[in-house]
Amino acid sequence: MDGLREQDGGAGDVPAVMRGIGRAARLAQRALANAPAETIDRALVEAADAVRRSTAAILDANARDLAEARDLGPAARDRLTLDADRVRAVARSLEDIAELPCPVGRILASFDRPNGLTIERVSTPLGVVGVIYESRPNVTADAGALCLKSGNASILRGGSDSVHSTRALHACLVRGLDAVGLPVAAISLVPTRHRDAVGEMLAGLDGNLDVLVPRGGKALVARVQAEARVPVFAHLEGLVHLYVDAAADADKAEAILVNSKLRRTGVCGAVETLLVHEKRAEALLPRLLGALLDRGCAVRGDAAACRADPRVTPASDEDWRTEYLDAVISARVVADLDAAVDHIESYGSHHTDCIVTEDLQAAATFMAEVDSAIVMHNASTQFADGGEFGFGGEIGIATGRMHARGPVGLEQLCSFKYRVRGDGQTRP
Amino acid sequence: MDGLREQDGGAGDVPAVMRGIGRAARLAQRALANAPAETIDRALVEAADAVRRSTAAILDANARDLAEARDLGPAARDRLTLDADRVRAVARSLEDIAELPCPVGRILASFDRPNGLTIERVSTPLGVVGVIYESRPNVTADAGALCLKSGNASILRGGSDSVHSTRALHACLVRGLDAVGLPVAAISLVPTRHRDAVGEMLAGLDGNLDVLVPRGGKALVARVQAEARVPVFAHLEGLVHLYVDAAADADKAEAILVNSKLRRTGVCGAVETLLVHEKRAEALLPRLLGALLDRGCAVRGDAAACRADPRVTPASDEDWRTEYLDAVISARVVADLDAAVDHIESYGSHHTDCIVTEDLQAAATFMAEVDSAIVMHNASTQFADGGEFGFGGEIGIATGRMHARGPVGLEQLCSFKYRVRGDGQTRP
Repeated sequence: MDGLREQDGGAGDVPAVMRGIGRAARLAQRALANAPAETIDRALVEAADAVRRSTAAILDANARDLAEARDLGPAARDRLTLDADRVRAVARSLEDIAELPCPVGRILASFDRPNGLTIERVSTPLGVVGVIYESRPNVTADAGALCLKSGNASILRGGSDSVHSTRALHACLVRGLDAVGLPVAAISLVPTRHRDAVGEMLAGLDGNLDVLVPRGGKALVARVQAEARVPVFAHLEGLVHLYVDAAADADKAEAILVNSKLRRTGVCGAVETLLVHEKRAEALLPRLLGALLDRGCAVRGDAAACRADPRVTPASDEDWRTEYLDAVISARVVADLDAAVDHIESYGSHHTDCIVTEDLQAAATFMAEVDSAIVMHNASTQFADGGEFGFGGEIGIATGRMHARGPVGLEQLCSFKYRVRGDGQTRP
Repeated sequence: MDGLREQDGGAGDVPAVMRGIGRAARLAQRALANAPAETIDRALVEAADAVRRSTAAILDANARDLAEARDLGPAARDRLTLDADRVRAVARSLEDIAELPCPVGRILASFDRPNGLTIERVSTPLGVVGVIYESRPNVTADAGALCLKSGNASILRGGSDSVHSTRALHACLVRGLDAVGLPVAAISLVPTRHRDAVGEMLAGLDGNLDVLVPRGGKALVARVQAEARVPVFAHLEGLVHLYVDAAADADKAEAILVNSKLRRTGVCGAVETLLVHEKRAEALLPRLLGALLDRGCAVRGDAAACRADPRVTPASDEDWRTEYLDAVISARVVADLDAAVDHIESYGSHHTDCIVTEDLQAAATFMAEVDSAIVMHNASTQFADGGEFGFGGEIGIATGRMHARGPVGLEQLCSFKYRVRGDGQTRP
């Protein structure tokens, strides 16, 4: 607690400290906006070098976090743990981000007007991005680097469990900025575990925070979505559906289902509900559910699913609304494609939904009518990921309808402005 | 008041009425999302016909509004007033919007992944758009039509001064929807003057409102920006700057200045502050300020501007922060381009700012460093308008950094989704 007080400058100063961070970030962002892309890339490479050189210090800091965090569950403990391989992966990821094309200054659209004006829509940084995350310390490097690459200043608020690891990684980013003469406030770490710091970020730091990205559990995301006075890039949950159509290929359906559910069960792109067309239920349900059950996945189903395999237990209405993030799935038979779409629109979270079918018309209808950020045809829902989309990393996945939807990569971390060029035109 | 109570179903029911409107709009929007573009275009043409056939009724309704609205100022009275020409223009505008290309279903980006997945980003409607406006009754038709064309349902809340005109115009839109079998709740008019209706819209109608567009004075916009729990497309003010650079062409500077300030003084793209490079002050300031003063524009200036013409009065610091929306301008000399950018970044509203120069490098620097939605070179700031940009109309101009920035036309009334197509791919 003494250490904390020292960092806070006394708990009563949290609002002042946070407002100061906001002002410094805004000033730093203006410097970033005018910095050459090469300078930013060099900062990222320097930061990667610093991470490699600091491996011992980072692992020491991580050991301290693990020693202090005694009541974490095994999954959270795993997310918190760094080893030499994970530190190397952090450094490589910084270099990979440096290699990506600069997302700022791209001409997004251009049009010539009859009066001779030329108008261009050109990408610009968003401004100052706040990232609030929990126990994963590598978010520090990933989020800070993606924001820097896109010309944004970032204000990072890591979880209190990972405070030492986060500080050690942040110090490497700062060394990268410093080495190339960029302001170190371009990537600011909130120097306090105090809960009020989050409240200040939610309030927008006097207009010095343009967007918030929460990375963590549902409680964190729900709080940020409910209380933030600035736009939020996030998804509350991924209640992902796989619909096996009347015209599905059975082998594809099984492979896609098993991968979508079980490749990793804790990711937002993991499928949570299986819908099967009535016509295929008798022939296909035992095989599909058996494939999951044999691999240790629990199934909660409607009457047809229960009949298909004795290991299936009856689903309640709550199951259709549940994101298990575990080796559990809900399964039901639907009368047709329309009923599948209705189910998804009624219970889904507009994140990712997939149809398995050889009928291109059915696929087109499904992909038009399902109102989700990502709609898929004949592919695993676990491809819902910025890296898999070729975005070179993502800061999160969003289900909002404005600005950023689906994986939030460098492109979504940009805004735009219009450049209008004339030769003295006046408006009649 | 009896009439009002009747429409409200009793004032206590306003929240219930508004929530019902939200639910109906959401359902109507799903129908719109699946309607062919031709059907939507026919609805707009039918609505235009209905407006023409209803000219007498619309003018009667407008006369009633004008008779009831006794304490309006002349500008507000003018905005409220319809005549046969203005009604014809409303009908023509509906037809013009019908003629525009459909903004939904456009492929915004597409990429093939090494694993054979193809990914498309495709435009979709935003959802349900709320429009809160004041005395301009034609916003009813423009906003309703732009939302309909982009597949969005709209909930329109007109000003209490224009209630009869607004109802008469809305009835024509409803006739258009009805004629082609689209749900009439696709364009809903809030049937109450009750102030609580706005509060319900600000709260988001139980998730059935996706974005709010306030159209009106600064007090309305400020309230919506401060209280809305959904994204807002708006600008609070247009504190527009014109910077006359060291390398400006004198004739262009004068023509652009006079047009930018005086073509129409009450629009958000009208210039409010003139900045002149020190090197040109002595030669150019008397001519530039004289051109404005001779046309009846008041000038509030710094010491150099006061010396340039005896009719100039001294500016206070408040003048640099004032959007006059009138025949008044503030004017000052700046040391150089950097000082001009600093002034704009310190006092501006990030709406529209312009440089007059023959130096392309200076223009490029200005347009890179000024962080406004629209940056211009050698053109009147009054071109800041969706119609002038070729958007075929606008629902407003936004200065936010997310999603919509600058003129908000059909493209900005769209969101997007990703369509991912595979052939059975699973993720390793």
